[in-house]
Amino acid sequence: MKVMVDVSIVPLGVGLSLSKYVAECEKVFSTFDIKTHLHPYGTILEGEWDEVFAAIKKCHEVLHEIGVPRITASLRVGTRTDKSQTMEDKLASVKDKLNSA
Amino acid sequence: MKVMVDVSIVPLGVGLSLSKYVAECEKVFSTFDIKTHLHPYGTILEGEWDEVFAAIKKCHEVLHEIGVPRITASLRVGTRTDKSQTMEDKLASVKDKLNSA
Amino acid sequence: MKVMVDVSIVPLGVGLSLSKYVAECEKVFSTFDIKTHLHPYGTILEGEWDEVFAAIKKCHEVLHEIGVPRITASLRVGTRTDKSQTMEDKLASVKDKLNSA
Amino acid sequence: MKVMVDVSIVPLGVGLSLSKYVAECEKVFSTFDIKTHLHPYGTILEGEWDEVFAAIKKCHEVLHEIGVPRITASLRVGTRTDKSQTMEDKLASVKDKLNSA
Repeated sequence: MKVMVDVSIVPLGVGLSLSKYVAECEKVFSTFDIKTHLHPYGTILEGEWDEVFAAIKKCHEVLHEIGVPRITASLRVGTRTDKSQTMEDKLASVKDKLNSA
Repeated sequence: MKVMVDVSIVPLGVGLSLSKYVAECEKVFSTFDIKTHLHPYGTILEGEWDEVFAAIKKCHEVLHEIGVPRITASLRVGTRTDKSQTMEDKLASVKDKLNSA
Repeated sequence: MKVMVDVSIVPLGVGLSLSKYVAECEKVFSTFDIKTHLHPYGTILEGEWDEVFAAIKKCHEVLHEIGVPRITASLRVGTRTDKSQTMEDKLASVKDKLNSA
Repeated sequence: MKVMVDVSIVPLGVGLSLSKYVAECEKVFSTFDIKTHLHPYGTILEGEWDEVFAAIKKCHEVLHEIGVPRITASLRVGTRTDKSQTMEDKLASVKDKLNSA
């Protein structure tokens, strides 16, 4: 089962600057067999369910190892059986509608 | 690693009444070794990371099997290493603050 | 337009114990003409759109006033025109399906 | 109060192709005094609180007017008083950390 996940990781107890921790997770994600897209409020992951969630679990584990005592993450998780759709497809589909308007 | 996940499952392409599908996932969740709490906009799952995410994966799989072509879910995922905290603890902590105000 | 919002407020830069701030927002919410339901990972608000979002804005403002420098909140926002449905209705609908299974 | 909101709109009861409706909301957003950034799982809005939430309300209203009977949206809402930070700033901050690694 393929999945697309938009994840926003929020480390708690480490002050106000979170970009260091987001960058750590980007590095973690890059070691998995998934596609990623960083945006200003999160990262979109695309791939097989088990691989994507292994990446997210590893991100939590690594942040805890480097001293983050608490994490809350918000995820949007999409699966579909009617067709295969990549993140590029999703974006292109909206832009097509906008351009043809 | 323990985790608390608040999950709201949204089946697409099956009309407006979603409670049937939420109930299917509740049944799925009850077969896993996790604690669950149903609320009006989702379900909170508590347990070991792998068990909780196996339950969520199974919920997606079962919904697709019974004919849901597309699912989007919104998840809040909490992990912490500073202390162990159950969902009852979290709720009690807020209510204590309210009662002592 | 009626709306149901499930909001989880996460104050940043104030340590690991967040219940004090959640309680502050509960007090704020109680001053608005809305229904609320506290659960272990957030609070569900129900009422007219403008009133509900005025309450959420006030919660952000009050937390900043008492010293929270940064807030990230996750919201689920539901509107519908096919029928009126309260949070009790939503919960009862799922429980009915579970009991009749 | 400035706010950054990452919003993912999910129309229910209108089939599986949602891009038409996302495009409608993009058009709505473009009529408000806010900055927007479309990504594969949502749109990020940046501006004054009242203007950003007026845009989101209008998006719900317009979708209902064109026949969407039910909507659930997932929002991430960020406010901060410690400094002003645009969505470009947020992205650049993570990329800096990645490049200096």
